[in-house]
Amino acid sequence: MDFKDLNAQATFTNKELEERRKYFEDLIKRRYFFNQGFEIYGGVAGLYDYGPPGCAIKNNLLKLWREHFILEEDMLEISSTCITPYPVFKASGHVDRFTDLMVKDVKNGAGHRADKLIEAFIEAKLSKKKLKPEEVKELEEIKQKVETFSAQQMHDVIQKLGIKSPDTGNELGFPEPFNLMFGTPIGPSGQLPGFLRPETAQGMFVNFNRLNEFNGGRIPFAAAQIGLGFRNEIAPRNGLYRVREFDMAEIEHFFDPKRPEHPKFKYVKDLKLPLLTAKSQEHGDGSVTQMTLEEAVKSGTVSNETHAYFIGRTFLFLVEAGVNQNNIRFRQHMSNEMAHYACDCWDAEIEFSHGFKECVGLANRSAFDLESHTKGSGVKLLAARRLPEPRKVTIIDITLDKKEIFKALKGDGNELTKLIEGYSDEQKAELMKKFETADSVEFDIKVKEVEKKVQLPKALISFKVSEQMQQEEKFVPYVIEPSFGVGRIFSAILEHSFRMRDEKRTFFHLPPKISPIKCSILPVISHEKYNDAIHKLKVGLTKVGVSSKVDDTGHAIGRRYARTDELGIPFGITIDNDTLVDDSVTLREILTTKQIRIPINDVFRVVSDLADGLITWDSVLAKYPLFKPNASEEN
Amino acid sequence: MDFKDLNAQATFTNKELEERRKYFEDLIKRRYFFNQGFEIYGGVAGLYDYGPPGCAIKNNLLKLWREHFILEEDMLEISSTCITPYPVFKASGHVDRFTDLMVKDVKNGAGHRADKLIEAFIEAKLSKKKLKPEEVKELEEIKQKVETFSAQQMHDVIQKLGIKSPDTGNELGFPEPFNLMFGTPIGPSGQLPGFLRPETAQGMFVNFNRLNEFNGGRIPFAAAQIGLGFRNEIAPRNGLYRVREFDMAEIEHFFDPKRPEHPKFKYVKDLKLPLLTAKSQEHGDGSVTQMTLEEAVKSGTVSNETHAYFIGRTFLFLVEAGVNQNNIRFRQHMSNEMAHYACDCWDAEIEFSHGFKECVGLANRSAFDLESHTKGSGVKLLAARRLPEPRKVTIIDITLDKKEIFKALKGDGNELTKLIEGYSDEQKAELMKKFETADSVEFDIKVKEVEKKVQLPKALISFKVSEQMQQEEKFVPYVIEPSFGVGRIFSAILEHSFRMRDEKRTFFHLPPKISPIKCSILPVISHEKYNDAIHKLKVGLTKVGVSSKVDDTGHAIGRRYARTDELGIPFGITIDNDTLVDDSVTLREILTTKQIRIPINDVFRVVSDLADGLITWDSVLAKYPLFKPNASEEN
Repeated sequence: MDFKDLNAQATFTNKELEERRKYFEDLIKRRYFFNQGFEIYGGVAGLYDYGPPGCAIKNNLLKLWREHFILEEDMLEISSTCITPYPVFKASGHVDRFTDLMVKDVKNGAGHRADKLIEAFIEAKLSKKKLKPEEVKELEEIKQKVETFSAQQMHDVIQKLGIKSPDTGNELGFPEPFNLMFGTPIGPSGQLPGFLRPETAQGMFVNFNRLNEFNGGRIPFAAAQIGLGFRNEIAPRNGLYRVREFDMAEIEHFFDPKRPEHPKFKYVKDLKLPLLTAKSQEHGDGSVTQMTLEEAVKSGTVSNETHAYFIGRTFLFLVEAGVNQNNIRFRQHMSNEMAHYACDCWDAEIEFSHGFKECVGLANRSAFDLESHTKGSGVKLLAARRLPEPRKVTIIDITLDKKEIFKALKGDGNELTKLIEGYSDEQKAELMKKFETADSVEFDIKVKEVEKKVQLPKALISFKVSEQMQQEEKFVPYVIEPSFGVGRIFSAILEHSFRMRDEKRTFFHLPPKISPIKCSILPVISHEKYNDAIHKLKVGLTKVGVSSKVDDTGHAIGRRYARTDELGIPFGITIDNDTLVDDSVTLREILTTKQIRIPINDVFRVVSDLADGLITWDSVLAKYPLFKPNASEEN
Repeated sequence: MDFKDLNAQATFTNKELEERRKYFEDLIKRRYFFNQGFEIYGGVAGLYDYGPPGCAIKNNLLKLWREHFILEEDMLEISSTCITPYPVFKASGHVDRFTDLMVKDVKNGAGHRADKLIEAFIEAKLSKKKLKPEEVKELEEIKQKVETFSAQQMHDVIQKLGIKSPDTGNELGFPEPFNLMFGTPIGPSGQLPGFLRPETAQGMFVNFNRLNEFNGGRIPFAAAQIGLGFRNEIAPRNGLYRVREFDMAEIEHFFDPKRPEHPKFKYVKDLKLPLLTAKSQEHGDGSVTQMTLEEAVKSGTVSNETHAYFIGRTFLFLVEAGVNQNNIRFRQHMSNEMAHYACDCWDAEIEFSHGFKECVGLANRSAFDLESHTKGSGVKLLAARRLPEPRKVTIIDITLDKKEIFKALKGDGNELTKLIEGYSDEQKAELMKKFETADSVEFDIKVKEVEKKVQLPKALISFKVSEQMQQEEKFVPYVIEPSFGVGRIFSAILEHSFRMRDEKRTFFHLPPKISPIKCSILPVISHEKYNDAIHKLKVGLTKVGVSSKVDDTGHAIGRRYARTDELGIPFGITIDNDTLVDDSVTLREILTTKQIRIPINDVFRVVSDLADGLITWDSVLAKYPLFKPNASEEN
């Protein structure tokens, strides 16, 4: 479905697609867009390096993301560390729940991701054997739902289908959860356990109070972060789709759950997008509905206006970045696949040659994270909303005799004081009431994973009650989180922009903003008489902010065009003998390969405007005379 | 020495400096430039997060670095992974040698970095006790040299001075090397050990062949990488100077050791820079010499022209980024402190309030890294130089009967074939000679760290000799590596740009390129009648590429100026009632606080040119009428 020409909307047979994929992969490798990491040492699965053109495209993609989201929406960008201490991921739920089910080869102990193993087994079976229609139907149903199976369900399927360890044919054990976080001890003693973050989000949650203060206490506001994430995948795949270290770009939009409207929703409400709802997947035929975002909010299909706003903005970003808009859909998570922190989640899925893949997650995380870290740290993470009118409230201040508590309870005292200090106003009132009739109250605390009960004597706690006029009330903000997998979008852009003139002439037709370099400068032949013109063009293009690449090697001009096309350089300036006479050059565009003749003094602004998308190539073709190169020059 | 006003060149007493530091640290914290990571969980030593203004400054610093080095010099930027498998750092020498000496508290096992412990002890002793001049001299000598001491020397000093474990007063054990790399197992089996890279460099070395091919085999060329590095410091310090996770920007300039000239050296050769040579430190009085880079190369002070070229370019970068040029010096490593990979190394040291600190390392790594990875991987990392004229050479092709070798030698066979396949032409010739007179040859190999001897029978190896005309010869390129610690430079810029009008009015006078936001937009009072003008200014500034921040809160204009000053926003536009009449606004500059009156239509270009450094504030003052605000407006 990919590899199609956006203009021609050509469709290809499977065989043709396979052919094209070979040329695509050859081009990626030959011009060093990316490669497997540590190749000379045999490579490491799930680790990839970006070569010069890939790195430039990734940087341009991140620049566009920063402009489209952070700058246009005045978001608060931060940069927090990858190394994260244990208590943060304990509180966030990742230590307990950020797992995939793994089955082990009972003899050699090699681990396999259970769902992927079942999928691969079914795919092989479907492609190799003639099966009855009902068998096919059953296998396809399993394949579609296996990701959401419990350990027992996976085990049952493995037994029923007789799946064995793929390399050895050995039996497989019962599926066990495997935590995907990379662990690493912090400090020389090795006593402070830590992890590499699997998402950048927690850095924004734990700094919520700082960010809220920086923003003057006004809510809603959004924090954003561009950075690395790490996941120790059991079964990394070839290519950039499922890797162990990856670039992410994440937004945490904090808002008042009583006010889920977004002031800029009007700009995206009429966007009609293909939505694949949970309902359609769970109880329907799995079909996609075309719906405007306004309808999606009104019908309750998407959780709220702010959530829908970011779905719209994400769509616009992907299209601007070069993803084919006909290959994007938004799929809602079914209730049994939702991450532990989400209450509604939509994935922006992009169609690759292997099918639709999640590239952006848009989750409504509700108050889950801020509440979890309040509990975990004992520090309240709250925003304030102004009350319509001031109201009288009863304030209960609790004073704990910490010295005596620590003396009496030792290590447990710390947990107990943290617990009480984290109490809400309601909990404080309740506790005060308990102590009115008791000399001691029992608390449930958790120390190093173990639940225990402790007694707090009345003498060690005191309550002060006062009345205040309150102008505002505190609340835990909700969060909408758009989370972008940069490598996945990068891959989609390359697949969707891949073009072939013929077998020998493959190239990338990228949006100029994304292209690694905007313009090439090519003397028609290699000769020093052109050096002044080359220099003038290079300096002039740099001055208008256009990156350029000179190729004055001795290769034929046609071969040099082909080489710049392979890198996805959209425009090319050629210097010839006429340049030395009348200060004009030719300007060529990658997709049409048409050339015009243009004065040097005009070319800087024209290329800059083309690169910024302010003018079209058609308008340039209309304005300047077409240039017909010799046949030999284009070959 | 920092905190001085660049213009006034004021010098302060130590007490004044301490006072200023308090205000500096308050400002950093209050406006969230950066903070310790995971504060709400008590913080983790050596981990820091950048808040919105800090993150923007860091991004601008990296953007400037990319322009100054990568774009201006056509470097090949790549992006490789942080997670790195064991064999890479085994080959590079980091597994064995990337260590600091640590002493352990003999009772509680807590680790301390030996040199820092000795330094701190001496500092405390010098500041607290009246000592004899010769004692002072001895202690100061130890303090200066302790970083380069051997374990035995450190132990002797600890014994002699009677240094105990700082928290407990317990005895300290013998200094042992502690490896600074964070370890993390890769994959579900945990059987592939890995590390987080302590530098980005290895990613460029292991990809050398790819990069060389991408560049068409032309040498010299430079690879560059901006990314994270991780070091599990034994004793991280407060602030961004010695941290456990940090941004780096590194260049690996590969060149032919027979041609160490640099074509652009002429542009920096006359730069006169303060050089602190190894000689001056080892055998002299430790004084700095002012020397042009040309003199430094001619006198052999710096290893070669390319090395000196990057010293010059580094100096220019630091100054452009906002480091006070009078607080930079270049210090040569002494022979006993050189890293294991370097043959000559100069640090760009920047003076902070605590003294000079290394911020950029400029190492001549010679052929060390490419040779190490050739040995470690068995893949040759070579470039080619054209011969003055073709020459006839003897080519020896070796064919190994791998199947039989693996059968005979099992796992050792792999090491043996890797060894032989990595042979140079000379080694091949030598081996062929040995086999002429022997039926079997003995080889020294290393399997899992253990050295062993294996025999290869003549029957399993064959040699084919042919003659060829050679146009070029292969060689191992040398490397000059400029390596930038981004957080350290960030810190220096903040210290050097810190200013105080009085105790209440602190601000950062940053180069506009580095400022987090270029321009503020402030209505003189909060009123909706100004909304159209605000919108017009915001859109107009965005169009010319100037980032802006609106502050239309109800605070007095003077307070809002002060708040934008605190963030280092260099320019401010104020909208008042005259704006509504004649479409003019005032424009204010942060350092002088002077304001001019200027038509809205002019202000976009003027602010953009000021921000790009194309015009000066003085020239703007000369052209437009001065605006005198009411006294109340500036308070």
